[in-house]
Amino acid sequence: MARIVMKFGGSSVADIERIRNVARHVKREVDAGNQVAVVVSAMAGTTNQLIAWVRQANDNYDPREYDSVVASGEQVTSGLLALALQAIGVDARSWLGWQIPLRTDGNHNSARITDIDGTDLIACLEKGQVAVIAGFQGIAPENRMTTLGRGGSDTSGVAVAAAMSADRCDIYTDVDGVYTTDPRIEPKARRLNRIAFEEMLEMASLGAKVLQVRSVELAMVHKVRTFVRSSFNAPDAPGMDDPLNPPGTLICDEDEIMEQQVVTGIAFARDEAQISLRRLDDKPGISAAIFGPLAEASINVDMIVQNISEDGSKTDMTFTVPTVDLDKAVRILEKNRRSITSEVIQSEKGLAKVSVIGIGMRSHAGVAATAFRALAEKSINIRAITTSEIKISILIDSAYTELAVRTLHTVYGLDKAS
Amino acid sequence: MARIVMKFGGSSVADIERIRNVARHVKREVDAGNQVAVVVSAMAGTTNQLIAWVRQANDNYDPREYDSVVASGEQVTSGLLALALQAIGVDARSWLGWQIPLRTDGNHNSARITDIDGTDLIACLEKGQVAVIAGFQGIAPENRMTTLGRGGSDTSGVAVAAAMSADRCDIYTDVDGVYTTDPRIEPKARRLNRIAFEEMLEMASLGAKVLQVRSVELAMVHKVRTFVRSSFNAPDAPGMDDPLNPPGTLICDEDEIMEQQVVTGIAFARDEAQISLRRLDDKPGISAAIFGPLAEASINVDMIVQNISEDGSKTDMTFTVPTVDLDKAVRILEKNRRSITSEVIQSEKGLAKVSVIGIGMRSHAGVAATAFRALAEKSINIRAITTSEIKISILIDSAYTELAVRTLHTVYGLDKAS
Repeated sequence: MARIVMKFGGSSVADIERIRNVARHVKREVDAGNQVAVVVSAMAGTTNQLIAWVRQANDNYDPREYDSVVASGEQVTSGLLALALQAIGVDARSWLGWQIPLRTDGNHNSARITDIDGTDLIACLEKGQVAVIAGFQGIAPENRMTTLGRGGSDTSGVAVAAAMSADRCDIYTDVDGVYTTDPRIEPKARRLNRIAFEEMLEMASLGAKVLQVRSVELAMVHKVRTFVRSSFNAPDAPGMDDPLNPPGTLICDEDEIMEQQVVTGIAFARDEAQISLRRLDDKPGISAAIFGPLAEASINVDMIVQNISEDGSKTDMTFTVPTVDLDKAVRILEKNRRSITSEVIQSEKGLAKVSVIGIGMRSHAGVAATAFRALAEKSINIRAITTSEIKISILIDSAYTELAVRTLHTVYGLDKAS
Repeated sequence: MARIVMKFGGSSVADIERIRNVARHVKREVDAGNQVAVVVSAMAGTTNQLIAWVRQANDNYDPREYDSVVASGEQVTSGLLALALQAIGVDARSWLGWQIPLRTDGNHNSARITDIDGTDLIACLEKGQVAVIAGFQGIAPENRMTTLGRGGSDTSGVAVAAAMSADRCDIYTDVDGVYTTDPRIEPKARRLNRIAFEEMLEMASLGAKVLQVRSVELAMVHKVRTFVRSSFNAPDAPGMDDPLNPPGTLICDEDEIMEQQVVTGIAFARDEAQISLRRLDDKPGISAAIFGPLAEASINVDMIVQNISEDGSKTDMTFTVPTVDLDKAVRILEKNRRSITSEVIQSEKGLAKVSVIGIGMRSHAGVAATAFRALAEKSINIRAITTSEIKISILIDSAYTELAVRTLHTVYGLDKAS
């Protein structure tokens, strides 16, 4: 007997027939003797429709009202799944964010969970009832509805699993696991059986869209073993009932991964832009003068590189921002030009960041050199590099994205046997 | 300055353009210096879609899950209207049933309001903010969502008005008031400027669909002056800003109605069926034996007539039930035939009940005789009659419904001047 949380995304509950299929997945786990809580997203398309209405009603919308309107989608699916479970003889009831309660901060539209009271949920499970929880939603301190941002139901699932001390959290999605890279770009990409929390966090942060980044952070902090698996597999497909080795990817502590590869995956993010500030005064506080105003405007700065300029008294600073934020960033920098002291502000779009990720890098030298050599052989120019213990990120022209991903995928031995 | 509640039905908020129109109606009242709470239904069609999904998920549905799913429709419109109000410079926020809280009993799908805490709502209004309340929904004692039954937003509106000691409750709908009878049947029907609570209660109970019966009961008990008016009138149409005399019908205490007519309106209900029990033992407890089991099955029995049979030892009992319940009622009676002692059970469909309503009847003799004479002149056969202080109901073959309604409308002087 285990206590598990199953999370189903919007495409898994897109219509009543698919909701019935989800109910059969849940029944399989109940029949196996498990205590089960389920977290659901809204029906695919519903959230976009609701957001469109909000924008039509008021383009400059109050985020509290946005949250109240948009959270209704998960309310509908939680009730419908409870009904579909009852229809096949599984005792179930729906839970809304305010009923649990699942408390968040007051940062509407992308709230963070502050506290989940697991008492009532656990009592529900203890009496053999499936708890069907509306994902994506919570309540702010002043009892207004909040939502957790795009993909927030993943975070709901992991957070509920942590609050209930669940044995694992199964994230059912429209792919059957986490791949070494995006299979649409590299058909030789392999599904990973296991990936460490830290690696998955880098993969999600760097462009792999399988899981919301915050859900991975939460899983890592609370050590929630998280399976990524497909809801489109038949509920009775071979292996689906083996909790230790279902088809899918287990995100877990690195201790659980026996044969750690040096490199686990290749992630990438297009639509990067670069800003260069030339001939800055090289004085204390210059970084704060540059990056403070950008942070206040919620612009996400990445890949910062600083060089001493030729004469030694001046310095150059280069960094990347998402392309959508480029114009705003440049405006802010121009406005603060005096305190920044830069003589020249240059910017460029059309860049991409390709990242090599693997916990094994910690104990292996020369991983970065392999990447640089491989890209050089393909004549791909490297514009900036940043590294951490478990990843190397390389900035290139975005036209070379696919080539770089495939090249690195091959050179690190990630291609599946053909 | 007055404190008012404005209630808008589903056709008034069917899309964003209409929600904007509703916002302009609300702004008119705010600009006039009033404190305003608004109660909204779901967008027209939404509730039916949600109910269809519930039935597809589980035809034998759990009413608690039904309520959670279906109440989402009002959640959406309350947020959208708050946004539309903000867009035109009116401070507003949405309120859900659990946020108020609006407490009901646990009778899911047609719950009754037990308590509304007006504290937070009044504080909202006192600071000049419009409270936009999701109608139709409340919370049961164990914190599950409830709904108030079809037309329940009317009840929400009146109940909120009572809880906030509002000066009046404006029910905006797709007609511009209460008519002397259904204008689709009698084009000479007149809009009533005023109608007494008791009369409106009879009108609503007997087939006029303008307001949910329970909302009228509540208005009567709490003396909530209730205007029925059209949301399709332009917000700036002549007279719309005159709170004492807008285009519409005021439902109020009879003291407020100066020139009371003897008869105020003609209501009708088709789809009545009749059951006759012949040659019953005329003994104490026989009525309880008949009507007890029917009440337990929630069958609404109406128009009961009892006659002594010829030899005096037996009696005949005739009563009506809605046609949809006829078969069920007959089955129940057959099952209990021994305790009922009836020798013959007869039933007949295809009947209609036409009712003449007016508080003035109390002080005027001969009102019933006028009806009987007028119907006899048209050769309409009367099958049963029941009367109360302020109404006469007559059972006829439903083929004569329109003729009877028009005849009575004319004979009581209700036709508008042509």
